[in-house]
Amino acid sequence: MTSIIRQDLSTRDWTIFSEKRAARPHDPGEKRKKKVLNSYEPGCPFCLGNEESTPEPLLVINGGGRWSVRVVKNKFPAVESMGSLEGGSYKKRHIEGPYLSIDGVGEHEVIIESPLHNDNIAKIDPDHVEKVVTAYKMRFIDVSNKFTNQLVIVFKNHGKRAGTSLDHPHSQLLAIPFVPGYIRNKMSESQRYYDEFGTCVYCDIINNEKSSGERLIYENEGYVAVAPYASSVPYNIIIYPKRHMSCFAEADKKELKGLAGILQLVLGKLYYLLDDPDYNFVIDTSTIDQSGNRHYHWHLEIMPRLSTRAGFEIGSGMNINHIMPETCAENLRKIRFIPNKKGGKK
Amino acid sequence: MTSIIRQDLSTRDWTIFSEKRAARPHDPGEKRKKKVLNSYEPGCPFCLGNEESTPEPLLVINGGGRWSVRVVKNKFPAVESMGSLEGGSYKKRHIEGPYLSIDGVGEHEVIIESPLHNDNIAKIDPDHVEKVVTAYKMRFIDVSNKFTNQLVIVFKNHGKRAGTSLDHPHSQLLAIPFVPGYIRNKMSESQRYYDEFGTCVYCDIINNEKSSGERLIYENEGYVAVAPYASSVPYNIIIYPKRHMSCFAEADKKELKGLAGILQLVLGKLYYLLDDPDYNFVIDTSTIDQSGNRHYHWHLEIMPRLSTRAGFEIGSGMNINHIMPETCAENLRKIRFIPNKKGGKK
Repeated sequence: MTSIIRQDLSTRDWTIFSEKRAARPHDPGEKRKKKVLNSYEPGCPFCLGNEESTPEPLLVINGGGRWSVRVVKNKFPAVESMGSLEGGSYKKRHIEGPYLSIDGVGEHEVIIESPLHNDNIAKIDPDHVEKVVTAYKMRFIDVSNKFTNQLVIVFKNHGKRAGTSLDHPHSQLLAIPFVPGYIRNKMSESQRYYDEFGTCVYCDIINNEKSSGERLIYENEGYVAVAPYASSVPYNIIIYPKRHMSCFAEADKKELKGLAGILQLVLGKLYYLLDDPDYNFVIDTSTIDQSGNRHYHWHLEIMPRLSTRAGFEIGSGMNINHIMPETCAENLRKIRFIPNKKGGKK
Repeated sequence: MTSIIRQDLSTRDWTIFSEKRAARPHDPGEKRKKKVLNSYEPGCPFCLGNEESTPEPLLVINGGGRWSVRVVKNKFPAVESMGSLEGGSYKKRHIEGPYLSIDGVGEHEVIIESPLHNDNIAKIDPDHVEKVVTAYKMRFIDVSNKFTNQLVIVFKNHGKRAGTSLDHPHSQLLAIPFVPGYIRNKMSESQRYYDEFGTCVYCDIINNEKSSGERLIYENEGYVAVAPYASSVPYNIIIYPKRHMSCFAEADKKELKGLAGILQLVLGKLYYLLDDPDYNFVIDTSTIDQSGNRHYHWHLEIMPRLSTRAGFEIGSGMNINHIMPETCAENLRKIRFIPNKKGGKK
């Protein structure tokens, strides 16, 4: 058997690993050309000096005599905050024939990660990355505490294949008024594991990965970065806090510093190994009202966009991956560079 | 509220509709250039005359003195058929620490839809499309009856953004030895609906769409094509058979002809409206051993690849769509063309 199907212990979802698939013929495609970016772009609404193109900031973190991180409302929101909550209309459900819909109430914010158009989390000052993740936490708490919001997702789209519409480095926060089935299912699987084994499934994964080491990419005081056993895509990476915390908002100041450090290091390894690949990352966490629960364990998942989700993946909900996580982890471990040195590969 | 969140009645998954998102600024991207294809490509393993590049065919359907449709094993399979079933090793599960894996046993076949490199289901002879869907059914039954296979998915990837590696028109069939959670969940939702209301949720959707008409794209004797109420992507289309059938294999000869007709018509409308967009389609069906059940209802779902699944979609399992299905259905209804006339827009 040259192909193996692995189960993700935390979700019970499966991935097919078939290294043979990597060898299949392709029609010659266009070679992706990387744009060279300037530090300032006159038409970019997120650049230093163009602040009037965005709404009033919700949060500004300064540094070096100017702003370092700025959070604004998304001008093209997927969901919108309620001006008034009168009459409880924020929870309005509509029945249309046999169907159900909900008003698109929520928040959609942009975390502008730097005043400079051509900055990159993988290469900026580590203290600056700490400001970015601090902004994540501050906005996560603020938005979560508004009672119209139920689920808050912090995510980043880097590069065209990852769905970015603007090059300027930014992340997003999106809050919706309910918990979708996908998340509920993940929560229910970890609850079931806890009921069966009396331990957090994520803590068990962390301990196993630390002791086996073959999928371990990096470890610092507070975190491990792992290529998951059932990685859904090539170079899939999960950063887990070692301390059991169900909700991202539980991370303290020191833990945010540790997160910034490992996030930058791992993104730097990806940058140098794969020539600045497009990727998404997502903070996967319990809701704030589930803080302190025993079965969930927040983590940050990075999904490079090196392959395309096609018909089988859409139809089955499974993924096909052509490279084993052990190989990815080994390649990422080998890459060494000096963080915060632009162009600084060791 | 300019944004609305709709629930898919059959899966209980949600989609956020926000037409504002369509207006957001984009960095200027490269305009996609369509390749002009020849009818024969010397290096293409699927072209007429190059049959020796593929393994022995599993099925050949002839027409006009040559083959029309040819099914071969995928030379770069995601999963592989078992040579021998001795010792029941086909069902081998492996325990690795806390994790579970299964041997990649299954089938991975390619349905070559035409001998000509530049053919397109949207434009070939309707009788030829009937041969393609007949090949789907024949291979679906044959593969399903092999007791190592549990789930069989027939799908098509059209164009680079849909994950095609070869331009020559082809579909695929992939069989795996178990049912993944995503499918089990869909089955369980339709079972629950049946238990609650005593009717098939898909039959209820079909009746509702026929009577309201606002999301109806096309209807023939046996089928309706609908823009789903909670469409996950722009121009999402589902073709439902009107007769209740849980499994695709239940479709008889006349029903396959009807499927070919509506599939070609709908793909033709997409072709002319959106200039040959990339798309995936998937036959979503119960397994063959669930044929005749009362709660599931097979259908064919088309997902054009006009937008990119980004961090929020990955993290939440929900989709954000910037065009309402009522608009898509109206635009598709308006497009009229003469099937089987190359370049034949009315």
